[in-house]
Amino acid sequence: LTHGEPLGFRPLREAIAHQIAAERGVRCTADEVLITSGTQASLDLMARLLLDPSDRVWMEDPGYVGITSLLRAHGAEVVGVEVDSDGIDCEVGRRRCRSARLVYVTPSCQFPLGCTLSLQRRLALLDWALEEGAWIFEDDYDSQLRFAGRPLAALQSLDTSGAVIYSNSFNKMLFTSLRLGFLVVPEHLIDAVAAARSVIDRFPSVPDQATLCEFITQGHMEQHMRRMRELYELRFETLMRSARRYLDGFMELSSPGAGLQVIGWLAPGIGEDEAWHQAAEQGISTIALSQLTIDRSMPAGLVLGVGSASVRGISRGVRQLAQVLRRLRSRAP
Amino acid sequence: LTHGEPLGFRPLREAIAHQIAAERGVRCTADEVLITSGTQASLDLMARLLLDPSDRVWMEDPGYVGITSLLRAHGAEVVGVEVDSDGIDCEVGRRRCRSARLVYVTPSCQFPLGCTLSLQRRLALLDWALEEGAWIFEDDYDSQLRFAGRPLAALQSLDTSGAVIYSNSFNKMLFTSLRLGFLVVPEHLIDAVAAARSVIDRFPSVPDQATLCEFITQGHMEQHMRRMRELYELRFETLMRSARRYLDGFMELSSPGAGLQVIGWLAPGIGEDEAWHQAAEQGISTIALSQLTIDRSMPAGLVLGVGSASVRGISRGVRQLAQVLRRLRSRAP
Repeated sequence: LTHGEPLGFRPLREAIAHQIAAERGVRCTADEVLITSGTQASLDLMARLLLDPSDRVWMEDPGYVGITSLLRAHGAEVVGVEVDSDGIDCEVGRRRCRSARLVYVTPSCQFPLGCTLSLQRRLALLDWALEEGAWIFEDDYDSQLRFAGRPLAALQSLDTSGAVIYSNSFNKMLFTSLRLGFLVVPEHLIDAVAAARSVIDRFPSVPDQATLCEFITQGHMEQHMRRMRELYELRFETLMRSARRYLDGFMELSSPGAGLQVIGWLAPGIGEDEAWHQAAEQGISTIALSQLTIDRSMPAGLVLGVGSASVRGISRGVRQLAQVLRRLRSRAP
Repeated sequence: LTHGEPLGFRPLREAIAHQIAAERGVRCTADEVLITSGTQASLDLMARLLLDPSDRVWMEDPGYVGITSLLRAHGAEVVGVEVDSDGIDCEVGRRRCRSARLVYVTPSCQFPLGCTLSLQRRLALLDWALEEGAWIFEDDYDSQLRFAGRPLAALQSLDTSGAVIYSNSFNKMLFTSLRLGFLVVPEHLIDAVAAARSVIDRFPSVPDQATLCEFITQGHMEQHMRRMRELYELRFETLMRSARRYLDGFMELSSPGAGLQVIGWLAPGIGEDEAWHQAAEQGISTIALSQLTIDRSMPAGLVLGVGSASVRGISRGVRQLAQVLRRLRSRAP
């Protein structure tokens, strides 16, 4: 109880190194793992160490707005790089701003589009980072929750130059208010990272880390993830079935891919802002796609998540959403 | 489990506001309390919001080196301001660097000298802050552990202009690896602080906060602090008695005041570095006073703490320290 290591509780770091090697192909030892309070804090720490004000950072477009805000809070100039069905397109990035210092990517589970970064794009991104001396921040969240397609190992597993910083979070795997995540940092950065952590906030809570460590090493985590996969599959089935029945003509849902959300593309004549707002008034929490775009514009759509809604809540929500959209459609010219 | 507030768990903030009003005279509501992972993280957050690179910051001289390091990591120019038996001397600060942006102070329990900032000096500091538009970061750690003199209310209780940021830490009251502390922030800063926290690391662990909240509201904290006071008193008695018996002629101990350490002033001819080093080799962990000074020089001395040593360990440590110092003295010219 009386002390802690700046990198985090060693048995937990060992359990994590073991787990991500086996499940994600991440190449590291416990000495390269740093425990944090989650992805936001992980990127914050790395941005403090790696970014200077006005540095350019590539960000997936569309992408998670919390990350964009954080990068901007660091004084970075965020450059949106378009994502298509193969993930972020490095060629677009090179054309828009070749000499960025950092890129934030979600290779296994793009938020919000749910696509996976293709192998070819992965290699292109690593080539670019090596050429430009740029860093790649790989957010591997929800990588174990895949509902279509073949899982790919982490981008970090392909990195031979020490450019990739790998991040994941137990706040997403277990529960949001846990506040434990981790980074895998290239070996040549680890001393700087440990020194920074030590001066910024010393070390993470040891009781929390020790508890999580037991949870992992006793096999509960694996069991939990298996149960969650089944649960989310059931929720997606409910969502897709209800959508076919009630949303036809108003909204077309993308297929579940990686991650816990799909995009509901709005039918012509239904405005995104209005749909988002009126859904919210009915207690249906969505994200308007335009809230997640940076430099591009996209067709009107709402991000629909199954992460925190019950099966019954999803059925009811879809019916209510259908009423909202029907009203909006009937008013369309 | 699924969400948290950027300022922290509200029932805990309420319990804290209640407790510090009663025990420390701090004037605040739960709306001005922010839960952090401890003092280091608290100052880090405030420094990010309040300091620009090259800003001057007054720091108690001698003072806690972890704070000096953190301020320098923010690019601040740290100005040491001499501490005497009445605490930090504002007049010295005005002469050395009138227009500092921030001052870090431990008014109720100066580290390492154990003195208390006098009422006159408190008022002078508040006047200066108001004149210069400076911020006062009040670290009120260990304020309930006082072994001599009359307790004073927190400096914050005298502040009428919203210049004082009050900080305290449960890592010191309970155990180091807990990682929970808090700030009381002037009302006009709280929105900025909440926004920054939200983008930097979202919110603190809810289970930890809820547990601590129960611990406080059920009266365990009060009982714990009472027991700790008795325990530390016993340890100080042991230290002072052993010192009278074994250290006479080698080292003169300051009287316990506020906080869990005293200064052992070395007799002439005994070098501080050598004494510190050879004590460490015997497993006696001290801090050389010169490691804590910034711009001044002080007589040779070691900081001796009772916070993590048992009564038996203290007796044994003092005897071993006496042997080390006797050897060093016998070699003196």
